[in-house]
Amino acid sequence: MSSADSKAQKRQKFEKVFEVIREELLTHFNGEGMPKEAAEWYRQNLDYNVPGGKLNRGISVVDSVEILKGRALTDDEYLKAAILGWCIELLQAFFLVSDDIMDSSVTRRGQPCWFRNEKVGLIAINDAFMLEAAIYWLIKKHFRSEPYYIDIVELFHETTYQTEMGQLIDLITAPEDHVDLSKFSLQKHRLIVIYKTAYYSFYLPVALAMHMSGIPLASSTTPNPYTLAQSILIPLGEYFQIQDDWLDFSGTPEQIGKIGTDIVDNKCSWCINTALAVASEKQRKVLDENYGRKDAEAEKRVKAVFVEVGVKEKFEAYEEDAYKRIIGLIETIPVDGLGTDGAVKLKREVFKSFLDKIYKRQK
Amino acid sequence: MSSADSKAQKRQKFEKVFEVIREELLTHFNGEGMPKEAAEWYRQNLDYNVPGGKLNRGISVVDSVEILKGRALTDDEYLKAAILGWCIELLQAFFLVSDDIMDSSVTRRGQPCWFRNEKVGLIAINDAFMLEAAIYWLIKKHFRSEPYYIDIVELFHETTYQTEMGQLIDLITAPEDHVDLSKFSLQKHRLIVIYKTAYYSFYLPVALAMHMSGIPLASSTTPNPYTLAQSILIPLGEYFQIQDDWLDFSGTPEQIGKIGTDIVDNKCSWCINTALAVASEKQRKVLDENYGRKDAEAEKRVKAVFVEVGVKEKFEAYEEDAYKRIIGLIETIPVDGLGTDGAVKLKREVFKSFLDKIYKRQK
Ligand SMILES: [Mg+2]
Ligand SMILES: [Mg+2]
Ligand SMILES: [Mg+2]
Ligand SMILES: [Mg+2]
Ligand SMILES: [Mg+2]
Ligand SMILES: [Mg+2]
Repeated sequence: MSSADSKAQKRQKFEKVFEVIREELLTHFNGEGMPKEAAEWYRQNLDYNVPGGKLNRGISVVDSVEILKGRALTDDEYLKAAILGWCIELLQAFFLVSDDIMDSSVTRRGQPCWFRNEKVGLIAINDAFMLEAAIYWLIKKHFRSEPYYIDIVELFHETTYQTEMGQLIDLITAPEDHVDLSKFSLQKHRLIVIYKTAYYSFYLPVALAMHMSGIPLASSTTPNPYTLAQSILIPLGEYFQIQDDWLDFSGTPEQIGKIGTDIVDNKCSWCINTALAVASEKQRKVLDENYGRKDAEAEKRVKAVFVEVGVKEKFEAYEEDAYKRIIGLIETIPVDGLGTDGAVKLKREVFKSFLDKIYKRQK
Repeated sequence: MSSADSKAQKRQKFEKVFEVIREELLTHFNGEGMPKEAAEWYRQNLDYNVPGGKLNRGISVVDSVEILKGRALTDDEYLKAAILGWCIELLQAFFLVSDDIMDSSVTRRGQPCWFRNEKVGLIAINDAFMLEAAIYWLIKKHFRSEPYYIDIVELFHETTYQTEMGQLIDLITAPEDHVDLSKFSLQKHRLIVIYKTAYYSFYLPVALAMHMSGIPLASSTTPNPYTLAQSILIPLGEYFQIQDDWLDFSGTPEQIGKIGTDIVDNKCSWCINTALAVASEKQRKVLDENYGRKDAEAEKRVKAVFVEVGVKEKFEAYEEDAYKRIIGLIETIPVDGLGTDGAVKLKREVFKSFLDKIYKRQK
């Protein structure tokens, strides 16, 4: 079986679990005596917003549990890992539905943003809330009697709060309708990326997998496995987002599957911040006058400055450095894993499998 | 000291605790390395949206703990009860900030709705999220080592979900911009009121106080004290909201402190549902053609039908019946309380103090 086939199969198996949780959520909703039209609305909210993405975050919970346990999962273990994976996808759906409203976005995953549907509008705000609430209802239903129940509840709380903090800095640093490049800096970019993306996309799936595999939060191991995992996954998430920013500028639509809009959308991207850090007075003037304008000519002038200051070379240097740095961090984990003998240990492979998936990615 | 003075003093003492939690939240926020302007934004979000209401829900946690314990609270007990009270106020702020966006409201508590402030706009959505996230951060900080920690976390989750379900039914039953009275009914009204208001405003404060007082959720008492409390507080909340709907129609601005707008706003209020239930064909036509219009003449025509069908008399009959029914429920609690001797018992007075505050209220 080719690797593409096995990936598709893995995805299909994971998607089947979405059917299960959707029916659980709707059965409970109906059991509360909610009207038929409200249940139909909730079903559409779930179907439209939760399963249509790349599912990398969700599936990586399953992958990580398999690596940590070092064996194929039983049906019950698979179901539990996949439910936690879907809880991340629910969290992401909560963020994306509301982010699209705040950004006045038009499309998401090849369809109109949820709030752009005629009957929906700002009801989408409450729909986003319900996607978030579903997380805790599912965790309670499936994990209430596990010793790590409170740990994963707290992890979702904390990650949610961190992401909202990142979203706040992003919103006040780079409002879609008011360009002020003096608010930008590579340091601000880093903070936004770590809080808005890295915690929920990289640390959260692995930490959930660690809890499910029986690695205790109050571990006597030095360093604490959760602290160590975070110290690797946050830089990894930062690297991933910098690639994302780079591909938005440099990738062709055929390659990245969409047209990059960071420049016209006034995004606080790695590219603009890198350019700002080295721009001459004249280049800076071009950036100030042309960044964040809904105008193809202005966009071209910004891109020309990016080329002039060598954003490409700087990205390539960054990528090599980030790769080496992350490998170095991974190799602080002992070869046979971090933890007590006989118990489940934190393994290098969890992090390597992430890094391999993203190193020099072209889309 | 007059009862008004003592009420003002109680409020002041409670308000002082808001200063404490705001500083805790901001200290933590700054400790995460957030930029100064983001901290200033968060402070304004908290100050603008959390403390300016009637604070009935929050203060009733403190009152209920005092009644259950049957004595004045120690400083530490007071602080803990007040923090839980502020967590309800944070939950309410989360709901109100977002409800005002969804309803396109203009003012709230005598000032522009938060999202109406020029610099804020739809960033208010993320601000609402942060008010919700603050709840769990505070509960973890102050209650993590209490035996009832997970119980109150789950209680907030469940109540939040219930309120969002109620909000969903309300939004699709009574959209501000599309009148369709065939969607209305007293049964629908009841469901909206119970889910959107009664759980978080009435059951939540008492259940929190019960947990804090040491009444176990898995009580061996029959009936379970939490089930019994809910069976009283949900009808009490329903009664409270029906009064609210009645006062919106019948109260003068001097009396209720605002101008009633339920009719022009197409609200699924008890008054319209009561009128619909008994309207003649002709009256129904008047309601269909005039309800939910931003037009003072149309509003007058609706009000005339309300008078014709005897909404006033029906409200008075409802109020007498509700009062008797709730008293009857309260009296199912044994005179010396429900629970085990020697432990803290659930007392009639918790519920009576609520009922006394609202029976025949004129504002
Ligand atoms: Mg966006
Ligand atoms: Mg955004
Ligand atoms: Mg991007
Ligand atoms: Mg409203
Ligand atoms: Mg509303
Ligand atoms: Mg009202």
